[in-house]
Amino acid sequence: MIDFKTELSRHVEEVELILKEQFPVVNESYSQRVVDAMKYSFFAGGKRLRPMMMLESYRLFCGEREADVKPFMTALEMIHTYSLIHDDLPAMDNDDYRRGRLTNHKQFDEATAILAGDGLLNLAFELVADSMASEENAEMLMRKSKAFRKLSNKAGIYGMIGGQMADIQAEQKTEVTKEELLFIHKNKTAALIQAALTIGAVLAGATEEQVMKMEQIGYNIGVAFQIQDDILDKIGNEELLGKPIGSDEKNQKITYVTLEGLEASDKEQKRLSGEAITLLDTLPGNNEFLSALISSLITRDR
Amino acid sequence: MIDFKTELSRHVEEVELILKEQFPVVNESYSQRVVDAMKYSFFAGGKRLRPMMMLESYRLFCGEREADVKPFMTALEMIHTYSLIHDDLPAMDNDDYRRGRLTNHKQFDEATAILAGDGLLNLAFELVADSMASEENAEMLMRKSKAFRKLSNKAGIYGMIGGQMADIQAEQKTEVTKEELLFIHKNKTAALIQAALTIGAVLAGATEEQVMKMEQIGYNIGVAFQIQDDILDKIGNEELLGKPIGSDEKNQKITYVTLEGLEASDKEQKRLSGEAITLLDTLPGNNEFLSALISSLITRDR
Repeated sequence: MIDFKTELSRHVEEVELILKEQFPVVNESYSQRVVDAMKYSFFAGGKRLRPMMMLESYRLFCGEREADVKPFMTALEMIHTYSLIHDDLPAMDNDDYRRGRLTNHKQFDEATAILAGDGLLNLAFELVADSMASEENAEMLMRKSKAFRKLSNKAGIYGMIGGQMADIQAEQKTEVTKEELLFIHKNKTAALIQAALTIGAVLAGATEEQVMKMEQIGYNIGVAFQIQDDILDKIGNEELLGKPIGSDEKNQKITYVTLEGLEASDKEQKRLSGEAITLLDTLPGNNEFLSALISSLITRDR
Repeated sequence: MIDFKTELSRHVEEVELILKEQFPVVNESYSQRVVDAMKYSFFAGGKRLRPMMMLESYRLFCGEREADVKPFMTALEMIHTYSLIHDDLPAMDNDDYRRGRLTNHKQFDEATAILAGDGLLNLAFELVADSMASEENAEMLMRKSKAFRKLSNKAGIYGMIGGQMADIQAEQKTEVTKEELLFIHKNKTAALIQAALTIGAVLAGATEEQVMKMEQIGYNIGVAFQIQDDILDKIGNEELLGKPIGSDEKNQKITYVTLEGLEASDKEQKRLSGEAITLLDTLPGNNEFLSALISSLITRDR
């Protein structure tokens, strides 16, 4: 058995190194400010879960050329980062701090933060484009095309952006249905996890059926994680949650727990988590660290 | 000789039809608002110059499968549109109207406008990804990879976004060098014109040398257009310019004319325009409409 905590920090370091190496060096005197702002948020720590999951999914399917997955890992993390920068803006969540540092628009200014977000989203696809335009193997180019399609789809109106829009609208409502809440969790949270797991699989040459399983696992992890978050907010441990408990109630936020009650939420969370682990076990490869990582996400202690 | 005005409106209609056909139909009840906001700005008229130039460049090089160029035309126009939505935001230019209609954040709200911009930028690449993932011809897939790289490069920190950052910073300065001004024109204006002309060429199978010529033509058009704008603001015709003359002086804006004087500006504008036309003539194909379109852009009457 592996010591998960030690393994996790080793993997975070590994991913961090890849992200540093993949971020292009830019020396453009007149536009340096936007690059500085992009780097400020991109290299602000973070758990690096999404690129880590992508790499481990690639390894699960025995991908043999890790250089192929690195630009996609970096691209996905750039997309995650840009969404945080724009989310923090005054017109959105209006947050001054993130991970103990000033948010991008507080450290720089609003105009720069808008451009830095745009810049990261664009740069994500630029990395993918560079990786594709220099690909000489026809089979690999086709895999990269599919990975590119998955990335753009999960990040956009059919994925993360769609979830953000629905979330903003739900916050202004007094009634939210379970269907609507699941739409938000699926798109706002699960979509990028699905991107991570499926892109790793696609690039490693997994079959369509295997990719579909990874997509399902990503959905289950994303939604189970959110329900767990709601449960922890209700009964839980402030330290584990990273924010004061009871905040949902205070903000009159409609969550899975307020809609379905604690017991049913717990049951559904366990069902989703269990199914994710079972599905992972049906796949031919074995990646002990990925299994442990997934378990740690969806079974955080209460 | 063709009647340019009639030809132009015929071409605008043609492009408009392509854009409508390429914009995906989305029915997502919970995120419909962001799609509505995206469509509001995307279908607000506009001259459609960039997609038109791309199509005409494709035709100049005798491209034979126009279905290939359509997603890229739409993607480029989406990128242009998102940049206008974000530019109009209160933290940027703070404009209430564009083309006689309320700006996106005035018609919807700031949060939606930020997401709509993000959504269009992302959707641009999603269209490209769909077109690549369904491509079965290896040669065409390689061309599309190159076109994708060009698009992402010209739209990002090495192109449009870089130019916008430099422009915002220049506005806060009392001294701006000619080099800095040319950097802004090159990146903020010329980059997407370069994308239009080169992507059309790449997709049609032009040689590298031909693509480089189109890149140069795009640079000349973009910079000549901006200098012409500065000249018109100083001496010109309000109707042609579409804004009150003398506005640069009133805003104490540093332009090519304030830096170099009218005579030198006029000379440089003519040099750039002449070189663009000459370069276009050295290319093997012949596209009378494209030549007329380029001439109309850079020799607007005074």
